[in-house]
Amino acid sequence: MKNHKFKSVVKKYDVVFFDAFGVLKNSSGLIDGINNTFSYLKENGIDFYILTNDASRSPRELAESYIKKGLSVINEHKIISSGMLAREYLRYKVKKGTVAYLGTENSAHYIEELGLKTISIANVDINDVSGISALVFLDDEGFDWNHDINKIVNLLRKRNIPVVVANTDMSYPVSGSEVAIAIGSIANMVEKILGRTFIRFGKPDPQMFNFAYEHITVDKHIPRNKILMVGDTLATDIIGGNKFGIDTVLVLTGNTISENVNARIKSSGIIPDYICDSAVIE
Amino acid sequence: MKNHKFKSVVKKYDVVFFDAFGVLKNSSGLIDGINNTFSYLKENGIDFYILTNDASRSPRELAESYIKKGLSVINEHKIISSGMLAREYLRYKVKKGTVAYLGTENSAHYIEELGLKTISIANVDINDVSGISALVFLDDEGFDWNHDINKIVNLLRKRNIPVVVANTDMSYPVSGSEVAIAIGSIANMVEKILGRTFIRFGKPDPQMFNFAYEHITVDKHIPRNKILMVGDTLATDIIGGNKFGIDTVLVLTGNTISENVNARIKSSGIIPDYICDSAVIE
Amino acid sequence: MKNHKFKSVVKKYDVVFFDAFGVLKNSSGLIDGINNTFSYLKENGIDFYILTNDASRSPRELAESYIKKGLSVINEHKIISSGMLAREYLRYKVKKGTVAYLGTENSAHYIEELGLKTISIANVDINDVSGISALVFLDDEGFDWNHDINKIVNLLRKRNIPVVVANTDMSYPVSGSEVAIAIGSIANMVEKILGRTFIRFGKPDPQMFNFAYEHITVDKHIPRNKILMVGDTLATDIIGGNKFGIDTVLVLTGNTISENVNARIKSSGIIPDYICDSAVIE
Amino acid sequence: MKNHKFKSVVKKYDVVFFDAFGVLKNSSGLIDGINNTFSYLKENGIDFYILTNDASRSPRELAESYIKKGLSVINEHKIISSGMLAREYLRYKVKKGTVAYLGTENSAHYIEELGLKTISIANVDINDVSGISALVFLDDEGFDWNHDINKIVNLLRKRNIPVVVANTDMSYPVSGSEVAIAIGSIANMVEKILGRTFIRFGKPDPQMFNFAYEHITVDKHIPRNKILMVGDTLATDIIGGNKFGIDTVLVLTGNTISENVNARIKSSGIIPDYICDSAVIE
Repeated sequence: MKNHKFKSVVKKYDVVFFDAFGVLKNSSGLIDGINNTFSYLKENGIDFYILTNDASRSPRELAESYIKKGLSVINEHKIISSGMLAREYLRYKVKKGTVAYLGTENSAHYIEELGLKTISIANVDINDVSGISALVFLDDEGFDWNHDINKIVNLLRKRNIPVVVANTDMSYPVSGSEVAIAIGSIANMVEKILGRTFIRFGKPDPQMFNFAYEHITVDKHIPRNKILMVGDTLATDIIGGNKFGIDTVLVLTGNTISENVNARIKSSGIIPDYICDSAVIE
Repeated sequence: MKNHKFKSVVKKYDVVFFDAFGVLKNSSGLIDGINNTFSYLKENGIDFYILTNDASRSPRELAESYIKKGLSVINEHKIISSGMLAREYLRYKVKKGTVAYLGTENSAHYIEELGLKTISIANVDINDVSGISALVFLDDEGFDWNHDINKIVNLLRKRNIPVVVANTDMSYPVSGSEVAIAIGSIANMVEKILGRTFIRFGKPDPQMFNFAYEHITVDKHIPRNKILMVGDTLATDIIGGNKFGIDTVLVLTGNTISENVNARIKSSGIIPDYICDSAVIE
Repeated sequence: MKNHKFKSVVKKYDVVFFDAFGVLKNSSGLIDGINNTFSYLKENGIDFYILTNDASRSPRELAESYIKKGLSVINEHKIISSGMLAREYLRYKVKKGTVAYLGTENSAHYIEELGLKTISIANVDINDVSGISALVFLDDEGFDWNHDINKIVNLLRKRNIPVVVANTDMSYPVSGSEVAIAIGSIANMVEKILGRTFIRFGKPDPQMFNFAYEHITVDKHIPRNKILMVGDTLATDIIGGNKFGIDTVLVLTGNTISENVNARIKSSGIIPDYICDSAVIE
Repeated sequence: MKNHKFKSVVKKYDVVFFDAFGVLKNSSGLIDGINNTFSYLKENGIDFYILTNDASRSPRELAESYIKKGLSVINEHKIISSGMLAREYLRYKVKKGTVAYLGTENSAHYIEELGLKTISIANVDINDVSGISALVFLDDEGFDWNHDINKIVNLLRKRNIPVVVANTDMSYPVSGSEVAIAIGSIANMVEKILGRTFIRFGKPDPQMFNFAYEHITVDKHIPRNKILMVGDTLATDIIGGNKFGIDTVLVLTGNTISENVNARIKSSGIIPDYICDSAVIE
């Protein structure tokens, strides 16, 4: 497949869904020149949203982190996170009791806004778990891995309750070339030990794309062929967008790079509609 | 969990989603008394839809098969099939070329209505595949398993094209206690041999529930908490409904029976909101 | 299947392989009366060995733990552990460099006896890893889970070295009804994040049974049909013994209990030659 | 890793284990010049064996196929096949009843030599299966895929009997660049539909290497560090040899080619001791 200019691609659409890491930012900060892209979108009346597998913070806090980096065009209404879907699930399906969580106190605030009581797994008394009505994996920080992951296994052996994984990513990039284990991997490990089926939210699951689609079509109808998904990862952004029926563009500023893009498309069978060097418009 | 009367459950909802096999019918025909249930729904102004993993026939043909069995209340607008989602995918994402398919000629008619050319895998010339733009798994009949499944593997080694699995079921019941291998299992085998990622449609995938939800909310808004999913299988109907945020009832007339219902809920961690002996209202 | 008396089964064999946990001991200590079994074996000239997925201690230390519990008949020559196989692998295939390990200092002593240098993952400097020639998962204690499991992921991204999992168990029982996550689960998580293939030792892998078989046939030939495997777990002890070609007996004092034994044999398709209530001879 | 001359590698060993396809032969016939290699081995007193995942023919018939191709040095004592292990399993563990098989009549002859009765799945009457004591997957030919693979699923729902997979390969090369689905893939599909655990024989399983090792050490002791495994596939030949504790050489005349060898070693984490362009000695 040959590479296209991002501008020549994006101008054909009414709405753009951006993946965050590897598309708008990397471990050093914003991708150079990405502000120009948002200026172009504004000038041409193209709307946009950021679809991100993240449950560590509320949409408002996620938006603030972009503003702080210099992308002032972002606000909380532009963010669609997997944490939002997990919160919707709790709103519909877990109306009472206390929700135990893995993550920081901050990650739980967003759930508490629903009026649900929450308790960090670190504070759960394993001998008194009858009041716990659900468990949510939010973030990889805020608890003692050894002590508290073992506590989860035993909590779930005592209580058959819904378990929600609010971020399905297995790892995420940190400084330089290093990665960190994401909460999705910890959830996979616990699920396999127990042989249970957890409820997962995040790309490539179509529910993430549908949630975004419902979000943007509240006021006006937008046909799917006027929406473009921009991502750096075949196995989440591209397959998810394809399956949802929208066009997809793979950018080469993150997980997939120029040297391996053709080999990866061939070996995975996941085929983007376009390939662009980056999402930057010069 | 204790069992509820189906009538006392269903009366709280505005819309009911029914799984087909094991809920409305079994290998002997309609579940005894299920006609009464539809009379009750009509009298009480409760709407209903059938959500089925099936791509072997069009919604109209599926509806006719219910009418022939004696359920005259069904028509094509009441059917939501995984085949409909596969057709939507092809409409949005595969606009040209010829779509190769596994299945009967009849199963392909529904796709041809889109204006797409189709060709049975049985008629594909493996030395001339440049015009094939997608492959669809529709039905387990209509081709020679040995010759044509091997042909698929080699077709996909030559052509990196989108592959759609229009029914994710692994097996389905036939006469008596026997089952038959469904097209979903054949697709799994080919995917594993190639190491590729196919695009799948069908319960428990949320896209199936979302498609039904979009279908019923075209004219009027229905909140999710007024929709009930009725199914006999934890791993498809119940987990899918739960994740979509609607209430779920497990009935014991199919895959899950009275003797193992508690053990299965415990071992799977998939928890229905209600358990009923059947979907029959006496 | 009907239950047999253990005595009537065991008397037909020349050598018995015992699983440890759930057969000889449980979380309260030795299984009541198990000493009688070993007296019977001695009186009747039946030899025995303990096959255990354990790499946290040397065979000598494992033997001492049985003696301390009151089973004085055990000595280090009666122990076949997965840690012994991991050590054999290192002896044959990793002759130089430093072996990094997850586990306690004590767990590494057994490897150091080979003359190999070892370093706890806790002491590895992630910026100076060029001297590390292999990584071994030994025990779930002795390191900081959050910090050091992340360190492993990044070590293996920098260095493509052999990785050995010296205990494939996913969890193990601790006091009362609680379990703890075993090092095998942590290895699975890291392997999945990296997409690599680690080298695993432990039941049900046939190498474990073969190692025991080589051990007992150094001096005299024993035909396989004169060896009996005694275990409490279908998926490790019984399938492993069956595949190795020796007879197997399932005892109901551990993972598999009287209430679920028939259902588990049917659902797994793993069929022991005999079922006994316990390995105790009264 | 840099490439070595095969001669400089092989001369350090007493025994060589060769994989067959991609090492000694390909779909066009023998690898050019491979006869020279066997002359060199003979002149230098280096013994050799062929380790092959194949259960379609007896060792004698496999040897004859090499002789017919022009490799007259091969005889039945030089062949170690996964079918031999499956036969050993039946000898030890299935002493009576009738063994049903998938494969040609010819593939079953080798099992009948044990004195066991066999019946092709094509001839099994699904309503009279009480006499069937085991099922063996031998070959992908000799039965009607659609009719008979469905029959297997229903046979195993009626009878909980040991199921043996005598060749774990997922596909095999045929003429030109085409492949064919191997019996291992069909077994995987049936196993997944049923949720059972089958008994598998073939590389990379250590039992295959151990069987070969027992075979060659009947008369004289050979230390493991004097045995070399030569293969073209990281995931079977190399990981299997490594785990068994013998040295391994990857050749680039089959599945792994010069262009992708470094990428594949890195992504898989499976590391051969040597890489050679081929097993040919000029």
